[in-house]
This record gives sequence, C-alpha cells and structure tokens, in this order.
Amino acid sequence: MDIYDVKMNLFFDLYELTMMQSYFFEGENKIAVFDFFVRYRRWVPRRYFVFAGLEFLIDFVQNLRFSDEEIEYLKSLGLFKKEFLDYLRDFRFEGEIWALEEGRIFFPYEPVIEVVAPLPQAQIIETAIINLVQFSVLSATKAARIFSVARGKMLIDFGARRAHSPQSAEISARSAYICGFMGTSLLSAGKKYGIPVYGTMAHSYIMIYDDEKEAFEKFAKLYNGTVLLVDTYDTKKGIKNAIEVIIKLREKGIKVRGIRIDSGDLEELSAWAREELDKAGLDDVFIFLSGGLNEYKIKELLDKNIKIDGFGVGTDLTVSSDLPYLDCAYKLVEYEGKPRMKLSAGKKTFPGRKNFKRLYKGDKMVADYVYPFGKDESFPENVEFDSSEVMLKKVFGRNSSFDMPKDERERNQYIIGCRDRFMRDFASLPDYLKSLDPPAETDNYPVIFSQEINEIVHYFEEKYS
Amino acid sequence: MDIYDVKMNLFFDLYELTMMQSYFFEGENKIAVFDFFVRYRRWVPRRYFVFAGLEFLIDFVQNLRFSDEEIEYLKSLGLFKKEFLDYLRDFRFEGEIWALEEGRIFFPYEPVIEVVAPLPQAQIIETAIINLVQFSVLSATKAARIFSVARGKMLIDFGARRAHSPQSAEISARSAYICGFMGTSLLSAGKKYGIPVYGTMAHSYIMIYDDEKEAFEKFAKLYNGTVLLVDTYDTKKGIKNAIEVIIKLREKGIKVRGIRIDSGDLEELSAWAREELDKAGLDDVFIFLSGGLNEYKIKELLDKNIKIDGFGVGTDLTVSSDLPYLDCAYKLVEYEGKPRMKLSAGKKTFPGRKNFKRLYKGDKMVADYVYPFGKDESFPENVEFDSSEVMLKKVFGRNSSFDMPKDERERNQYIIGCRDRFMRDFASLPDYLKSLDPPAETDNYPVIFSQEINEIVHYFEEKYS
Repeated sequence: MDIYDVKMNLFFDLYELTMMQSYFFEGENKIAVFDFFVRYRRWVPRRYFVFAGLEFLIDFVQNLRFSDEEIEYLKSLGLFKKEFLDYLRDFRFEGEIWALEEGRIFFPYEPVIEVVAPLPQAQIIETAIINLVQFSVLSATKAARIFSVARGKMLIDFGARRAHSPQSAEISARSAYICGFMGTSLLSAGKKYGIPVYGTMAHSYIMIYDDEKEAFEKFAKLYNGTVLLVDTYDTKKGIKNAIEVIIKLREKGIKVRGIRIDSGDLEELSAWAREELDKAGLDDVFIFLSGGLNEYKIKELLDKNIKIDGFGVGTDLTVSSDLPYLDCAYKLVEYEGKPRMKLSAGKKTFPGRKNFKRLYKGDKMVADYVYPFGKDESFPENVEFDSSEVMLKKVFGRNSSFDMPKDERERNQYIIGCRDRFMRDFASLPDYLKSLDPPAETDNYPVIFSQEINEIVHYFEEKYS
Repeated sequence: MDIYDVKMNLFFDLYELTMMQSYFFEGENKIAVFDFFVRYRRWVPRRYFVFAGLEFLIDFVQNLRFSDEEIEYLKSLGLFKKEFLDYLRDFRFEGEIWALEEGRIFFPYEPVIEVVAPLPQAQIIETAIINLVQFSVLSATKAARIFSVARGKMLIDFGARRAHSPQSAEISARSAYICGFMGTSLLSAGKKYGIPVYGTMAHSYIMIYDDEKEAFEKFAKLYNGTVLLVDTYDTKKGIKNAIEVIIKLREKGIKVRGIRIDSGDLEELSAWAREELDKAGLDDVFIFLSGGLNEYKIKELLDKNIKIDGFGVGTDLTVSSDLPYLDCAYKLVEYEGKPRMKLSAGKKTFPGRKNFKRLYKGDKMVADYVYPFGKDESFPENVEFDSSEVMLKKVFGRNSSFDMPKDERERNQYIIGCRDRFMRDFASLPDYLKSLDPPAETDNYPVIFSQEINEIVHYFEEKYS
C-alpha cells in the first residue's frame, strides 16, 4: 500500500475540472496561452531566482491520464456528466510548452513558462504546474544564495528530515546540487539523481559507548577518512578527545579527515578547534559546521576570516525558511489570439503570448527584454549591450528541445547540465544582485517590457477603470 | 517513469547506514529507546501542537525493505562490506513503537513517539520518522490555530499549488481535515482520504468571456448552487454583476450559493458586498474569502464583526509560513536498559524510557506528567486534578492498538476518528493556550517530569560538566 505514493493521480484542484466541463459543453477549446511567473514584492529577500523543476512538469504532462478508478471517483462527486467523463477517459495533454532551461537565473514578472494549448488542456494543469515548479525554484534559489556566500567551501544538503515530505527532500537535494552544493546526505536523492552522498555520525552513536574516544575510534577504524562529531557532551573536551584519537590512529595508518561541530557558539568553537588542531600538528584535519546554518550565518562566519572548510545546511535550505513560498502565478494571457489581462489588486498580469531576451555587456547581464512572441528581431531602446540571447525554448510539443532522461545515468547527465547553466549564469550576474537583502525598487534588475505589451496593458487598464 | 514517486525507498541519510554497519560489526544490537519530541523555543508562536502522521510512519516501518537494486547502489558507494549488505537484504523492522494517537494535542519535550528496538533498527528510521511526522504535526498545528479563531465558519484548504511537493499538498489537506477544516480543493486528497472537495472558479474562467456576467451565468447554469468569483477586474463592479446574475437566474430556478473575493481590502469589500447583497434581498447568498489568509487575518476580520461565511486558506496553511518547520528531534534516551543523555548546547534530552499522563480538572486539561515507563501508578505532587489518562499507546509490535486502514473507506473512518480526538482535546484545552502569541515561559502549559527523571538528568549534568 502506498499512502504517500502520489504518482500525480488527480493532482488537480476541483475547479480545474468544473471549469473544464464548462468549456467542454460550451465548445471553448480554442488555443489559450498561460504564463507562469513570479511577482516582485519589496520585502522579499531575493534579487534573482533560479529556474528548476521543468523535468517534473514535462513528466507530468507526458503522463497525464485519467484511470477508470479516478473517473469513478469523479462520477461519485455528482458534478460531472457522462459525456465529459468519457472525454476525460481519452484525455491527453497535446499543447506546447515553452520554458527556460533548468539552472537559468530569472527575475520577477518574466514569463518563465508559457503553455500554449487548447483552453481545457492549458487550464487543467494549473495546480500541478505551480506545485511542481514553485518548490524547485524556491529551493534552488535558496541554495544559490547559500552558494553565493560560501566562497567555494564544501556545502552539503542535510535537510531531508525537515523537508515537508519525502518528495520535498529529494526535490531540494536536487535543487541544491544544481546550485553549487557538493552533495546530499539523502541516499534516495543520491541514487535517483546521481548526487554524491555524504555523512558523518549522529550524537546517538557517541552516546552508545561509555566513552567518547572509544566511539571515535570505532567509527574511524571502520571508515578511513571519516569526520568525527565532537559536540555530544562538552564540545571543547570533545575536540580534545578527537585530537587524541586522530593522532593515535594516524600512527596506525588510519586517517580522519575532519571534525564536525553541530551546536553552540560556532564562531568561537571553530576558531578554538582550528587552533588546537594546528597546535597538535593536524592542520590537514578540516572543520565542518552544521546546526541551524543558512546564508546569513555562513556569511557572518566567513566574514570573520575563521578558517572553516565546509557546511552542512539542513532545515533553512530545505524549507527556505526566510521565504517558505514564492508569490507566483499561472495566468491566462491570451485566448483565440486575443490578449487577456487580470486587474485584481496587486496581482497584475502582462497580456499576450511572449518571449524574452537577455542582454549582455561584456560577460555581465545588463537587462532582460520581454516582447510579443515571434518578434525576435525587436530590441529595447536606451540599453547598451553587445550580445543577446532568446530565453524561452520549446520544451514540449513537436520538435521540442527537451529530451527526457531515460535512466539514472542520463538523469545525472541532465542535472550536471543544469548545474553548468547555473554556474554560467551566476558568473554573469552583476554584483549588486548578489546582496542578500531584498532589492529596493531602484536596484531591481531591469526587466523591460516592449512598447507593444505596455500599450495593451494600458488599453485594459483604461477599459476596466 | 516516476521521478516524483518516492515510495520511501532508501529514504535514509547516509550516516544511518554507516552507523548501522558499525553496530553490525561491533555486535551492538541490544535494545535502544529513541524519543521523538518537539523543543520549546520562546519565539515560536505555538502554545500547543497536534499529533499527526502516525499512519505514514507505521506504513513506512511495515514496508521497510532493501531491494536488490538498492543494495547494488549501496555497494557502489564503496563504504559497505558484503556481510552487512547481506544483512540488509533480509532486514525488517521488528521493534515496538509507542505513540500518541493522531489528533491528540501535545506540548514541548513530551515524548510523543518512543521507538523501542534493537539499536540498528531504531537508528535507521531516524530520517524517515522525523520527515513523516514533522510536517504532519506542523500542518495540523497550523490548521488547528486557524480553526481556533474561525468561530465555526467554513474553512477550506486551498493550498495544493504552493505546497512543497504533491505529497506535501496531500499531507496538509489531511492534517487540515483532522483539525476542523471542512474540506479541500485537492481531488487526490479527496479521493485518498475521503475528504469532501470544494471549489469555485478561477480568474481565467472569467477572462475567457468578453463579459463578466456572461461568465457568471454560464458557470451558474451548469453548477446549481455554485459560488461566483467577483474580483477579476473591478471588485465592486464584479459584486454588482454577480447580484444582477443571481437575481436573474433565481427567477429561472437556478440558485447561486455565494460569492468569493480573492484580493483587495477584504474587510471593506466584504462589508460592502454584504450590504449590497442584503439590499438586493440576497441575504442567503454567502461571502467566501480567499487570498493570503491565515489565522491572524481571519481573527482580525471576524473581530470586526463583519459577516463572513467562510475562508479558503492556501499558502499560509500549507507551508505553515509563520513557522515553516518544527524544532523537533529523535534522540537516543536509553540503551541496554541504561539511560542516555545528550548535553549539546540548547539541545537537552530527557533520559530513559517513559510514558506520560494528562491530568484533568473538570473538563479541562491542567498538566501533563512524564514518568519512567511502567510506573503508571505514579502521580505528581502539588497538582490538583480529578481524572487522568495515560497518553502513549503501543501502535506497532505485538498486540498493538493501531489498525492500518485497508482501503479508502477504512482510511476515511480512521481520519474521522482523528478529527473526533482533535475536537475533544481542543474542547479541553484551557483558554490561555488558545492565544495566537508565543507562550511566555510563565504561561507554558505545565509539563512535569517525575523526580526520578530529574535525578537522572542531574546525574548526567554533573558527570559531563
């Protein structure tokens, strides 16, 4: 029995299906365009976002089916007519999806996914598309921020236990690996995505033995090159004990690679540990920290020039605790070739099918430019740039550029490709966007909407005001 | 292909298995006791917690196996020896689990799950137990807070899209239903758990038609008794349009049950809508609000005595956004019959196998009392009470009191049972615990540890200080 095995069956909000039935009987199945985008909120401490989760989305639309059992359930709700349920039986998603590639950096209001499909098909995937993409973006963006302050030190995802489900744990391990983490502690993510796995020992291991040194020795003998956890009782005594054991084992040819401190005043303890290790001639034994870490604390520690070699980041990564959700949406922008626009307070959309370009000066991105679909020759005025790149690619539909990985080896290759894209984009990100603070309106990255789009916005605002 | 189909295979942090191999070769397989508990943090706005997720945990331990493919993967890591991998091939969890029943209210530091098993078995489930229980408790507790201020109004879970994965969405829909929500918008959760499903319409539906009134009419004709979304363009115009359509349809015998407002100044708009509806003789048409709601906003709205009939709560419920994780742990407290205790800064544990009682005076709970396992006749001094109840039950192992639901009908019965338990506990919760603020040290609910337990704590503190 699989009570936490979702398989994405019936992962729809009820209203997707009630609207769909209405469209079915009204014959509203002309082509609709929906945009997925993130909104700007001035209090949100994110100056850029990292796109991720596309693989999940493509897998979902490829496999979207209604089983007999699901149809029976829908029938039992008493809302759906036989003709519509019969239509669902043969339902397939046959639209086009245009999207960023995973690992790419993006900004608020950019259409990072555009779904172009007969209205019922584009509508029904709303709940799934937001769910599947939102958390991947959220966790990738959080990981990127941690990477951005870590000065090349080892970063390991320790978040599995505090993730909001087993799936969430795997998703954030994947996102973290795309955005510069070296590995994860979670075996299932390691296996599925080919992410390197790491681990040390738990406090319980130390507590099993009467003596801390006995525990260290037993573990180190079994795993040559291991890391010892020193804070189960008194951390400074633990460090002293570790040093004693490391020296003793070294004489027998057994190497301990590092120590881990998981609680207390990490700044004071790691400085003290470094000094003690160096005094004992163990300058090659590294110091690895964990316990409530995030980008803010890592930056603070490294800014003090304490020699720390790596960080295990758990909860704050895996739940993106300073921003546990994105203000993002999936909105209708065009139907039957005509632009559509919602005007709800604070929730503006940009009408019409679109694409966008990134403009570079030298090796830095300087502005993004959003324009009506098909107008690739269009450029903004008043921006100096010397190269540009069209950002949205067709990732689903005939001649799409996305190849679904077929096995774990291909999936690992795919994810390494995402990681490479992130690294390239991060290198071209201007420094003012690397600040951990929320962007003031004045130092938001420029996302310029074309004059044509602005004119349509203006038209709608006039019409409904 | 199931890239988001976790099935809990290999849902272990690497160190669970490296520690386990060490225990295997050292012959450390005597009985260990691990406690799962939540820590008190003074800034955490939670005065009580609701236990949930037990069904997931039991399912996990019942089905814990290592497949050949997983063993191959572990072998590929180069850390594990053949004898140990052979042992994993036949591994079964055969320990006992003692726990609260789902739906019960609990407090920090209470051992709400105790695992009693040979050390390797108790250790290996650490990552899974925390993951499977933490988010269920988190989302149930959040839902309970929302329920606690909603004065019996309709509460519907709208959170699926912003949950941290499809699984998280189903888990929080389930938690919300246990804690007083009336239903969910998510079909998969509705089907799996027998939760009633609800939904209205999306803005995109309105935007498909040239005219808001046309859209309202089409939808209402198809779904007698529906709810109209009025804020796609100008909300007050939308309300006027809805009233016009409702009156027109009423003459044809078609009933609209309510309107939904999803943005803007909800206080002003709902007061205005109520007035307009009443003026039009539509005092039976209800007002349903959504859009960024949580317990704080709902309390504020209802405190102003505006007549609102129901709330759709999405993101803030499903990610528990004011507290997106619990400071909780799964810690060794006993091995070979001897108590164990960790002293890491700020992360104290209470040693020894335990149980706890709830003490009632009249129909209110007055204190909980934690005592060594088997000492059920023990009571605290200086607490006035007139009844008591032992809280931890054996839920896994020989003669356990937990029956795994066998199908969707049984699962629905099970969840209704959890909901009943929550309702009973909520009714016996003293009023000072229903405040939304973090508890000051002085008005924490009394959780009293027995003198015997305190003496062991004292012994360890002396030993390691």
